[in-house]
Amino acid sequence: MNPSESSAEGLRILIVGGVAGGASAAARARRLSESAHITVIERGPDVSFANCGLPYYIGGDITQRDDLAVQTPTSLSQLLNLEVLTNTEATSINPLEKTLLIKNLATGETTTRHYDKLVLAPGASPIQPNLPGIDLPRVHTLRTLQDMDHIDQDLDCVASVLVLGGGFIGLEMAEQLQHRGLDVSLVERNPQLLPPLDSELSRDLAVALHEKGVDLHFSENMTSIKADGSTMKAHFQSGLELEADLVILSVGVKPDSHLALEAGLELGERGHIRVNEFQQTSDPAIYAAGDAVETHDSILGGYRPLPLGGPANRQGRTAADHIFRGEKALPYPGSIGTAIVRVFDQVAAITGSSERDLIKRSTPYKTVTINAASHADYYPGAEIIKLKLLWSPDDSRLLGAQAIGLEGVDKRIDVLATALRARMTIDDLCHLELCYAPPFGSAKDPVNLAGFAACNLRDGLLKPFYAVPETPAQIIDVRPVAKSQSQPVPGAKNIPLPELRSRLGEVDPDQPVFTICQMGKTSYFAARILQQHGYDAHSIIGGVNVNL
Amino acid sequence: MNPSESSAEGLRILIVGGVAGGASAAARARRLSESAHITVIERGPDVSFANCGLPYYIGGDITQRDDLAVQTPTSLSQLLNLEVLTNTEATSINPLEKTLLIKNLATGETTTRHYDKLVLAPGASPIQPNLPGIDLPRVHTLRTLQDMDHIDQDLDCVASVLVLGGGFIGLEMAEQLQHRGLDVSLVERNPQLLPPLDSELSRDLAVALHEKGVDLHFSENMTSIKADGSTMKAHFQSGLELEADLVILSVGVKPDSHLALEAGLELGERGHIRVNEFQQTSDPAIYAAGDAVETHDSILGGYRPLPLGGPANRQGRTAADHIFRGEKALPYPGSIGTAIVRVFDQVAAITGSSERDLIKRSTPYKTVTINAASHADYYPGAEIIKLKLLWSPDDSRLLGAQAIGLEGVDKRIDVLATALRARMTIDDLCHLELCYAPPFGSAKDPVNLAGFAACNLRDGLLKPFYAVPETPAQIIDVRPVAKSQSQPVPGAKNIPLPELRSRLGEVDPDQPVFTICQMGKTSYFAARILQQHGYDAHSIIGGVNVNL
Repeated sequence: MNPSESSAEGLRILIVGGVAGGASAAARARRLSESAHITVIERGPDVSFANCGLPYYIGGDITQRDDLAVQTPTSLSQLLNLEVLTNTEATSINPLEKTLLIKNLATGETTTRHYDKLVLAPGASPIQPNLPGIDLPRVHTLRTLQDMDHIDQDLDCVASVLVLGGGFIGLEMAEQLQHRGLDVSLVERNPQLLPPLDSELSRDLAVALHEKGVDLHFSENMTSIKADGSTMKAHFQSGLELEADLVILSVGVKPDSHLALEAGLELGERGHIRVNEFQQTSDPAIYAAGDAVETHDSILGGYRPLPLGGPANRQGRTAADHIFRGEKALPYPGSIGTAIVRVFDQVAAITGSSERDLIKRSTPYKTVTINAASHADYYPGAEIIKLKLLWSPDDSRLLGAQAIGLEGVDKRIDVLATALRARMTIDDLCHLELCYAPPFGSAKDPVNLAGFAACNLRDGLLKPFYAVPETPAQIIDVRPVAKSQSQPVPGAKNIPLPELRSRLGEVDPDQPVFTICQMGKTSYFAARILQQHGYDAHSIIGGVNVNL
Repeated sequence: MNPSESSAEGLRILIVGGVAGGASAAARARRLSESAHITVIERGPDVSFANCGLPYYIGGDITQRDDLAVQTPTSLSQLLNLEVLTNTEATSINPLEKTLLIKNLATGETTTRHYDKLVLAPGASPIQPNLPGIDLPRVHTLRTLQDMDHIDQDLDCVASVLVLGGGFIGLEMAEQLQHRGLDVSLVERNPQLLPPLDSELSRDLAVALHEKGVDLHFSENMTSIKADGSTMKAHFQSGLELEADLVILSVGVKPDSHLALEAGLELGERGHIRVNEFQQTSDPAIYAAGDAVETHDSILGGYRPLPLGGPANRQGRTAADHIFRGEKALPYPGSIGTAIVRVFDQVAAITGSSERDLIKRSTPYKTVTINAASHADYYPGAEIIKLKLLWSPDDSRLLGAQAIGLEGVDKRIDVLATALRARMTIDDLCHLELCYAPPFGSAKDPVNLAGFAACNLRDGLLKPFYAVPETPAQIIDVRPVAKSQSQPVPGAKNIPLPELRSRLGEVDPDQPVFTICQMGKTSYFAARILQQHGYDAHSIIGGVNVNL
């Protein structure tokens, strides 16, 4: 036999939190060391469960509860030779002594555990607005399997649900509750759904929800919930009142960082645990991972929290890697902010910075939006994808991308997330060589087309305009006659593109001209013709599909 | 009015070929110059048709023939203000005089045209093996709408079809002919389908075809076809005889480069027109694009042809860009070789170099294959993707990737094609931040998992073995008992992973041990345990899914 390869013999590792980040840290640690003493301390009764799946069990897409319990405490313990302490809360850290005080929530008993390395993966809790009625029995948040079970039980005897908050979880819940046959209202404090997405793309999500009968309200602030017989009434600042038998609160999460705060670890502005590229906190023996931390922002610099499952898992792995492999560990490269949500027949996804982020950070940017088919338009089933790019005017580097559609939205945003990580420019997007066969893509993929449009804009070939201008303005609708009649653009004159050269006399050269078509491509072709004939011609980005 | 922005007033541009590369060149040229005189010379009757869609019209997925004719000669001419000469062949170039001799194929009339810039986009023709019977009336190749129409007509009165060649078109044809209810045989000269794909992945395509009743033959060379009453008999070197009412030849394409050859332009080893990064041939006034050219190979250096629609379109655009914008044009970055094919319920895709390519070029490489779910395995509909990475042991740079599965194969290969273009390493793949919600992905995407596996292999944590070793060898099947009984691994002893630590006494420390599981993940966990206890333990890559 060879001598054992494990370094750091018998290291004592305590991990606070047994779900995404904590479970990944434990698994990677055990892979790297059979001799380490690894203890997972979890406040709840479950470890390593699929919390992203909870809405889909409530809605019925997932039928087996056991499918969500990826590991039980016993199976995890057995598989990885861990000590797993569930229903146990970590109550304080003594960084000098390297000890952790833990409390058995069943017995109340407290004990002190020594650690060589401590990994904090406590997650984040749903925000509970401090409002009258928030503690009524049928007002729920959704974080754990128990929350899910309570909602699931209650739903058997209710008819209407109010979802407060139109972020990722709120949207998934609205979709799933409607699947389950309930009357659903969704109220969002902001003027749009999914605030990380820019508003012109977010609109399509609202349409999808509206068409399925979800009752939507924007820019509404809830002030109280009152029991009203067997149902409840939610009251809003505007005077709006909504009746609902059950309320789901999904207005965001706050990091569970009090343990870190009390131990004197450095926190960020919004209370997240700040970590370096190896997930070390300001105390190098204490690591942190998951929803409670903020990591380096790869796009804009500084730090950003990103409370999502993917980062949590990979951060937990990074922490374990660094504990055993030191500088040979693969650093976590920071966050870029990739996320996706399905809402009925619309899928919205984002990577990198949005316009809102860039404006907030005073970062100069340019943007273009295209509409393109998800695969060859001559092959059945193609769907339109709206794809928006944001890039830096200084060096043409991609800053972010957003898309909405159905088929292939995830693919394009994953490609752009990869491009973003690689610090690619809009030029690089033009010649990405992506899969093309009719069922999967097009000879010029939407990502290529978006690159072309962005470069054309930068190079002055495309003079963009981002809305239908208010009349009086010279607007030329270059779609075929039938299309312009069935879906007219207010104030526009129709000159189909193939006739434009011969009908130039109808366009006034002494005032600006705005061209529009269905998707924003033909209007660009028209504007190129006009510009070359000396007109001050602007193409309306995204066409009727985005602007009407 | 502003002065016209167009440079190169009144440039005369001749474009040979009016489909992908030629049509894209014409469109971009017109966008850049209203004043250029642009003539498209097309040997056939059609321009800008969707040649990648032809098999799907034959099979019935596409029902409207007009959907394939993206533009007619008249509409293209009108849209772009072009002269379009169909049924016209370019017969010779005089590079000194800058003239092109063209022949009207209807009248036989020849004329000489002057050019300032010439763009060659003649494409490639299907190879017609020089064999007895190849000119029988029901022996077809498929390149044009007319070929498609002939096949379509003939199919109405035949029952069986022989497809010769199991490349992309052969596979698409086999699928579509079977859809149409025909008896299909497919014969491939090589020992596997789709030679660009490595053989262990290609096997799954053969299974998919076989299960749908396609009669498959490998390593067979056809020697003749003989008419036999109303049917035909194809004869092969091995003695094999196959009867078929119709034969489709899809044994590859050869570049239509005779015009370039005769004009003294530089060609590559296999007769492709060699171009620089702006698609210029060895004569800077002559450009070339599409299936007839070879471009720089971005991965291995040198040149490579890539007769696919995406590159053709983007190369045509690059040529036009350089004609009008000179050094400000965006160069074509070379080919990486991304391609995809669907065969019933299997999708295979590749990007970059295969093992075969790397061996041929004596390029050192490492490889790993993983099996992973296309999206969260607890959400319905997840499918297994086999994903193989190839990378350089010198600098860990990705050299290629291949995948087979159903859902999400295109997405992962597109992500990896982007990573390849960005010259990413296997480390970079570990922390790509990709879309995750249960219907779309997993917290650790298959691309991340492949990155982890590759890094583990490089870092010595994973000692790979690429097949089930021949017994006698110590093989430990670490799957659950039931699984190991229902699908036993020959010669293996079953010790389920959770029991491994307590049953180490059953593993002989004095001989190597090979661990195997279903997908190649649990066997890695087992090998890590064994290695740390001093065993020479190897994990069988891809598990039972790849190796049994």
